[in-house]
Amino acid sequence: MRILVLNPNTTASMTAKIGAAARRAAAPGTEILALNPAHGPASIEGYYDEAISLAGLLGVIRDNPDVDGVVIACFDDTGLDAARCLTDKPVVGIGEAAYHMASMIANRFSVVTTLARSVPALEHNLHRYGLWARCARVRSSEVAVLELEEPGSDASTRISAEIARAIADDRAEAIVLGCAGMTDLAGRLSADHGIPVLDGVSCAVALCESLVRLGLRTSRLGGYAPVPPHKLA
Amino acid sequence: MRILVLNPNTTASMTAKIGAAARRAAAPGTEILALNPAHGPASIEGYYDEAISLAGLLGVIRDNPDVDGVVIACFDDTGLDAARCLTDKPVVGIGEAAYHMASMIANRFSVVTTLARSVPALEHNLHRYGLWARCARVRSSEVAVLELEEPGSDASTRISAEIARAIADDRAEAIVLGCAGMTDLAGRLSADHGIPVLDGVSCAVALCESLVRLGLRTSRLGGYAPVPPHKLA
Amino acid sequence: MRILVLNPNTTASMTAKIGAAARRAAAPGTEILALNPAHGPASIEGYYDEAISLAGLLGVIRDNPDVDGVVIACFDDTGLDAARCLTDKPVVGIGEAAYHMASMIANRFSVVTTLARSVPALEHNLHRYGLWARCARVRSSEVAVLELEEPGSDASTRISAEIARAIADDRAEAIVLGCAGMTDLAGRLSADHGIPVLDGVSCAVALCESLVRLGLRTSRLGGYAPVPPHKLA
Amino acid sequence: MRILVLNPNTTASMTAKIGAAARRAAAPGTEILALNPAHGPASIEGYYDEAISLAGLLGVIRDNPDVDGVVIACFDDTGLDAARCLTDKPVVGIGEAAYHMASMIANRFSVVTTLARSVPALEHNLHRYGLWARCARVRSSEVAVLELEEPGSDASTRISAEIARAIADDRAEAIVLGCAGMTDLAGRLSADHGIPVLDGVSCAVALCESLVRLGLRTSRLGGYAPVPPHKLA
Amino acid sequence: MRILVLNPNTTASMTAKIGAAARRAAAPGTEILALNPAHGPASIEGYYDEAISLAGLLGVIRDNPDVDGVVIACFDDTGLDAARCLTDKPVVGIGEAAYHMASMIANRFSVVTTLARSVPALEHNLHRYGLWARCARVRSSEVAVLELEEPGSDASTRISAEIARAIADDRAEAIVLGCAGMTDLAGRLSADHGIPVLDGVSCAVALCESLVRLGLRTSRLGGYAPVPPHKLA
Amino acid sequence: MRILVLNPNTTASMTAKIGAAARRAAAPGTEILALNPAHGPASIEGYYDEAISLAGLLGVIRDNPDVDGVVIACFDDTGLDAARCLTDKPVVGIGEAAYHMASMIANRFSVVTTLARSVPALEHNLHRYGLWARCARVRSSEVAVLELEEPGSDASTRISAEIARAIADDRAEAIVLGCAGMTDLAGRLSADHGIPVLDGVSCAVALCESLVRLGLRTSRLGGYAPVPPHKLA
Repeated sequence: MRILVLNPNTTASMTAKIGAAARRAAAPGTEILALNPAHGPASIEGYYDEAISLAGLLGVIRDNPDVDGVVIACFDDTGLDAARCLTDKPVVGIGEAAYHMASMIANRFSVVTTLARSVPALEHNLHRYGLWARCARVRSSEVAVLELEEPGSDASTRISAEIARAIADDRAEAIVLGCAGMTDLAGRLSADHGIPVLDGVSCAVALCESLVRLGLRTSRLGGYAPVPPHKLA
Repeated sequence: MRILVLNPNTTASMTAKIGAAARRAAAPGTEILALNPAHGPASIEGYYDEAISLAGLLGVIRDNPDVDGVVIACFDDTGLDAARCLTDKPVVGIGEAAYHMASMIANRFSVVTTLARSVPALEHNLHRYGLWARCARVRSSEVAVLELEEPGSDASTRISAEIARAIADDRAEAIVLGCAGMTDLAGRLSADHGIPVLDGVSCAVALCESLVRLGLRTSRLGGYAPVPPHKLA
Repeated sequence: MRILVLNPNTTASMTAKIGAAARRAAAPGTEILALNPAHGPASIEGYYDEAISLAGLLGVIRDNPDVDGVVIACFDDTGLDAARCLTDKPVVGIGEAAYHMASMIANRFSVVTTLARSVPALEHNLHRYGLWARCARVRSSEVAVLELEEPGSDASTRISAEIARAIADDRAEAIVLGCAGMTDLAGRLSADHGIPVLDGVSCAVALCESLVRLGLRTSRLGGYAPVPPHKLA
Repeated sequence: MRILVLNPNTTASMTAKIGAAARRAAAPGTEILALNPAHGPASIEGYYDEAISLAGLLGVIRDNPDVDGVVIACFDDTGLDAARCLTDKPVVGIGEAAYHMASMIANRFSVVTTLARSVPALEHNLHRYGLWARCARVRSSEVAVLELEEPGSDASTRISAEIARAIADDRAEAIVLGCAGMTDLAGRLSADHGIPVLDGVSCAVALCESLVRLGLRTSRLGGYAPVPPHKLA
Repeated sequence: MRILVLNPNTTASMTAKIGAAARRAAAPGTEILALNPAHGPASIEGYYDEAISLAGLLGVIRDNPDVDGVVIACFDDTGLDAARCLTDKPVVGIGEAAYHMASMIANRFSVVTTLARSVPALEHNLHRYGLWARCARVRSSEVAVLELEEPGSDASTRISAEIARAIADDRAEAIVLGCAGMTDLAGRLSADHGIPVLDGVSCAVALCESLVRLGLRTSRLGGYAPVPPHKLA
Repeated sequence: MRILVLNPNTTASMTAKIGAAARRAAAPGTEILALNPAHGPASIEGYYDEAISLAGLLGVIRDNPDVDGVVIACFDDTGLDAARCLTDKPVVGIGEAAYHMASMIANRFSVVTTLARSVPALEHNLHRYGLWARCARVRSSEVAVLELEEPGSDASTRISAEIARAIADDRAEAIVLGCAGMTDLAGRLSADHGIPVLDGVSCAVALCESLVRLGLRTSRLGGYAPVPPHKLA
């Protein structure tokens, strides 16, 4: 099985980190193709970056048809709906993946993301997916996405402090890390706080593999009807 | 006052029709600048077209800073959030505008849009705006967007039939027309059915003028924080 | 165009202040008729005052048929539904107007109103309008309505302190002032806090003018069906 | 124990019918005082009648302080909140009473009321009370309130037909009769359709008696804070 | 009238206390049969205890057919739905009873229960009943159920402190005590805090008596269809 | 990896069918242990059967500690919460599994289950999980659970007819089969109707394997806190 893990920003170090996490999560025999668009924003922090990254993101999917499924490795699930109109192969966003998985191991969870400007987009997704009622709160750590790429930054300390607040104040039973760039932090933070900490990249790889293995493909009726060929020219 | 009315698809006849409607709706002294991007989809029907139109749409806003407000003239409110990060001038989508206006003249309304593939995107917007509970149903007339541009099509007859069903089956007290290309049909359909029929283009122009006149600008706190300059280069 | 701006309490100084605000907000050529009932409560603070003011309020509407639209200038939108059964001219409440406008410039807003006893009525309205999900919190400043009429009161200082708490604690991106008597405070509070602060009187005047100009009238189907003539005798 | 059962319209035959139903429902030793205001609408059908009846309704409560509790015998629970600010004795509306009782004997219920114009007010109440999710549908039988007072009318036949539709189409497990004037029909309709049919008058009497017996009084904190004495003068 | 008041845990002192409270709440002429299963958990604190108690609980109902109604005296309304399939006599849970009663005397209430592990089950019930929107917060006092049976414990002091927090922080207008074992504390806590404090046992007895007296039985259509005889063998 | 697939009813032929489906769905190397309790109902159809099956179901989990995860193979997710208090190994219900998976390949889905009496329990689960908004409708096919075990029954024809209605009337984009006994029908029904048809057994096996592989365990904070040892004796 071959899964395209698509980082919609153009920061190659982050794509590499995401690819490594995806490979760790994948079942034996799954090949991970970790890519990012050639052009677009270096990080996705809020609505504008999301919009600007879409053409590149959809281009990568069109240019890599030889895969069994797609993971969109940005926590706001950038372009998820559009991608599902482009292919009936399973497309899974790392945000939705983490929310669904958290819902099966906890009554309620909190999200710890990067900047305050990203919070409303995540809240809108939670409403849309229907999982809003399962989320105690979406919290920002005020760690910028690219700080997560800097060796020696205190990013993980600040994220850890926000997790402590979520446990104390939100009655969260699990924590979802709200950025693909945090994928390598989940294990240690879970051990430190004694609470499940979910990383969307690994959750999405597992869910995408599952959909592929079960032969479940995106519906062609209604909102995900295929794009007419003349619009793809 | 100068309002940019932005049709995010590239069909010039539709832009002209929208511009004419906007001018009829505008207050004396308001100048309407009706534009569309040079590149992008000829019609916006569902998630993929929406995503593909965004770069062009945001480019038009960046290239026309000399306006007092912006109306996004596509009923799925394409790029609305991203545009609000780009400028603190009021940005109003024709979908949200019609929903807000309908909420002040009816207890509940139904939407009559073009194709079934567009329905989920509108439903998601209604959830997001919070006005879902005011909407009885989003109905598709199975009229494609570009059929609305063809002289002699029976599009308005099919839309009228769908309005009749909305009145009979949904207990709708008002009808919202779910496509910018239907802007010239509202008056006659309202007279024919004895029910308010709202056109988003005129609603959005009026709301955008109102926000400008009252000095209300998009918040710079939270989700609409301004895009950092280096990301606009 | 002629708009009846109806203060449902009997405090003439407040009616004058509201009328002045409405005139500042109105488009050129709009005449504002600012009235209050002869009899009824001097202030509307909670459910009982609301109920007691209704006969007077509806009487003023019946006695002034020669207008193009009506603004109900009490923040709990007293008698809004009943008024819409009495006339098909647009009737806009200042509460709903501010909520709709705030929804177009912010992802979420907080309301700062007068007394705690008024909070549940506003919360019920927000649920009813469907905009509850857009409101972070309805806060009371414990400023009584008539304190707003007293020269030299510290009312605006206490309201300002409550706005600061809404920004810090609610992640509010905009503030809605929850009393018609606060109409003259919005500009300065917005400047002081660097956040949009909405006054319902000006919002409602603009929305009412818009509905009139677009020819949109209250639906006669369903809940706003006209009152039978024998019931008006 | 003495319960004021207050019909807010001025139709004496209806007050008598309601009083008789209340007496049948009351526990031994409960005295029922069935009254209606001297002035106001002859029937309450929609928002306007509701508003116009309030002054009379609240006057009856003020003039009859020597009771242990109050039942408001109009299915849209006219003036319920205002009445609770006027006295801390239990005040129960027949609409809410029937909804609460139905929720304890059925997973979901449908309401069968009089005219279409009354439906939105009932839907708003259901939202407000929080019991919206328990209600499958609010249906109108197009029986006017005063038809229920006419001997020989076919009102009960039409209500019965609407109940049949609710069972077939709504998957209703119970039926709530949506008008105080239907109080004498519940028994026979329940037998005819093999489904619980709830009458609000008897439900409200039982709930009001229960609150009195348990010593539970309306909260004086928040929205039901007592009306200041100078406002009652 | 004879009401079975069923404590689903096996702690006889608690059954006695519940029975005494039920007798105090009952109308003259109502006989209270207070029972608990012979086998099962000594206290019900969370999902597992609930599940384990069900066979015993349903057995007591099957073994005591000679009653007019059933009260399930555990605040998470253990087995409520299953019991309603077993008999069409009214079955009332003390949790739902307190929520319904609180909704008629307060705009919003908070629940003060025992342990944090019990909170999600109560929140799920509130969602299910539809009354979630009326509940400000479910709070745990960290008083274990059996501590309430120990003479000299400081349980009531800790519960009282939690009530104070609910009034200050949740804007609660009423308090619901979230454990059958707290039934004897309601009166004093209400007096101490000047706020209605509801005990589910007395509320449920009154509601069950009301349903019996009004002849309202559990619906046999849909989810509460009777268990087929061969499954009861 | 070893997964306990637990059929909570006692019908061995159904357990065998479920086990076979689980093995088909499992990844290479996963061992499926398909069991049912020795005592309990032969089929689970509604609330009572659910309650009666719980002691047996939890006993099987306690008696089989040597597994890596548990699938509860009854579509109403019987005992899911209780099981999560008993072990921190992942426990996945087939109902929730199918809903989560369907949410990633369709905007909205309908459920086709067995009897009308089972519908409310599924609706309650959907509310609880938060996925209610994703479900267009829960439909009953009036096929009893054990009819699915009878060779030559027309069960699949009736289920197929209900799927056709869901596509036509509900605008469903995917179908979830609402009974473990339908596990062998999904493939053909999907092919026949050209729509994804999800079987909960295979979805749950894949999700449970994923949770195990990712090292995600049930939270021990809050509602799923471990049962104290003395309660397990």
